Amino acid sequence: MKAILDLDTGIDDALALAYAIAHPDLELIGVTCTYGNVTVPLAVRNTLALLELLGKGDVPVFAGPSPAGFRPSEISSFIHGRNGVGEVLLPPATGQVQSQPAAEFLIQAVHEHGADLVIIPTGPSTTIAAAMRQDPSFAANAHLVMMGGALTVPGNVTPWSEANISQDPEATDYLFRHAGDITMVGLDVTLRTLLTAEESARWRASGTRAGRIFADMVDYYIGAYATTSPYLGGCGLHDPLAVAVAADASLVDVLSINLKTDTTGPTRGRTIADETRLSTPATAKVAVGVDSERFVREFVELLETLFSEL
Amino acid sequence: MKAILDLDTGIDDALALAYAIAHPDLELIGVTCTYGNVTVPLAVRNTLALLELLGKGDVPVFAGPSPAGFRPSEISSFIHGRNGVGEVLLPPATGQVQSQPAAEFLIQAVHEHGADLVIIPTGPSTTIAAAMRQDPSFAANAHLVMMGGALTVPGNVTPWSEANISQDPEATDYLFRHAGDITMVGLDVTLRTLLTAEESARWRASGTRAGRIFADMVDYYIGAYATTSPYLGGCGLHDPLAVAVAADASLVDVLSINLKTDTTGPTRGRTIADETRLSTPATAKVAVGVDSERFVREFVELLETLFSEL
Ligand SMILES: [Ca+2]
Ligand SMILES: [Ca+2]
Repeated sequence: MKAILDLDTGIDDALALAYAIAHPDLELIGVTCTYGNVTVPLAVRNTLALLELLGKGDVPVFAGPSPAGFRPSEISSFIHGRNGVGEVLLPPATGQVQSQPAAEFLIQAVHEHGADLVIIPTGPSTTIAAAMRQDPSFAANAHLVMMGGALTVPGNVTPWSEANISQDPEATDYLFRHAGDITMVGLDVTLRTLLTAEESARWRASGTRAGRIFADMVDYYIGAYATTSPYLGGCGLHDPLAVAVAADASLVDVLSINLKTDTTGPTRGRTIADETRLSTPATAKVAVGVDSERFVREFVELLETLFSEL
Repeated sequence: MKAILDLDTGIDDALALAYAIAHPDLELIGVTCTYGNVTVPLAVRNTLALLELLGKGDVPVFAGPSPAGFRPSEISSFIHGRNGVGEVLLPPATGQVQSQPAAEFLIQAVHEHGADLVIIPTGPSTTIAAAMRQDPSFAANAHLVMMGGALTVPGNVTPWSEANISQDPEATDYLFRHAGDITMVGLDVTLRTLLTAEESARWRASGTRAGRIFADMVDYYIGAYATTSPYLGGCGLHDPLAVAVAADASLVDVLSINLKTDTTGPTRGRTIADETRLSTPATAKVAVGVDSERFVREFVELLETLFSEL
């Protein structure tokens, strides 16, 4: 299965990128960059650097739209570091961003690859919604497995809103109302898939530069989680779980439902069932249960192998 | 299976009462009355009258606690009528409320019947939580199938709170944190189980007083729903669905989860997963899918038979 990631390249985005490269059932054909954990230019820089670090400098990188003057929130910078990768210094990239806009690349890729392509957004929905608005056939035909939202659990930036959705609720609402096939991998499941310093130590032990850099990034991330969510006992593998589900849907139990995002009122940014479409055929699947043990095991092992071979 | 209903006897409570009587797998051994759609005294009066109308004047009725000076909300009175039963005149009851307090009766019944008893609360959690606080073994051993809450859909009194929970969020939170076995049948499923004037006409056609009275009540209720939730195309069978699930759990798909109720902050009254207990064994089951077609068919038929035989 071909895959495109849409990343706001912070730490779990970096893990998702590495996992998409490591996963035997996915072929990464491009990365589009959005804002959120970092700005678009920094997401592009981090993505180019990480791809080269992982021996995949040939994968094209595209820039998506960004609100004018966007700055990451304080809490984002706390969790991902000012540079998005836990203050770890990445070897600077030699490659360049593509001149084609991200939304155009996404539309073209769906026309070209159809059912053999999965798009995995792990940041705000801005770029995906832009592509949908530009081309209704993209909306109807794209297969999306999105990290974002919270249906059965509280949000993480407000009591009702998850970070990705909170950036652009209108875009996610548009996505939910127009996507022909969307799987939501939100906090419902990603907060049950945890990584600890024990696992990052295995990557460090690979002895490679990539293994050391990823272990450093994750240890920073685990430290931030120990402050923000001490009850979890690790860091949430948000974005990598979306990649895993894109490759193997059997990892999660899903609820079929028609979703909306609240865009007005006190619960702006909430992802919830659309009460006016309860009895019409569902277009979205929401992951509400996950085989955490299997996912974390496969994830840690495949990354260990990837890092060892670099 | 023996059953006790805890009702704030409005229209769907009346339907739940009739269904518990009509259902071949349930034996109604008592009704406890709470506030919400109506005051406790009116819930008692309605319940006594309905039991006698349905030939079950021998079922004991108990009064639960109520906040001082409680008055039903405007929207409750709109949906259920000022008298709780759609302004329909019920033949006055001859029976009396029991002197034993509701919570004591519930505790005694669980001690006596154990696993052979299901308690079905369809109003605020006040009485159930009072029983739990009085007797921790009640909390551990009672089997509860509760109508209330909204996990995957918006609330109906605020964007996040369902009517029963909104009355006493602290009580529902206590219930979720202490119940050994609780199934939540909330708006997630009850808004998918709809009754229309076509079905009430069948009851009216039974030609009995009970059939006519229940048809009149339901037609009032359907009229209110046509104003408040026109997109549904019928009235929600909230409380009867909880009775149905208590008798036959195979009607719903459930999500196993540890629940809490928000008691502070902007989302007070929301039912949601407890993010600090995501990875501990779940004590609650939330109904998230329902075989509406089968439920409505069985419900309409069993009530038609009940009314015909009176
Ligand atoms: Ca991300
Ligand atoms: Ca009720």
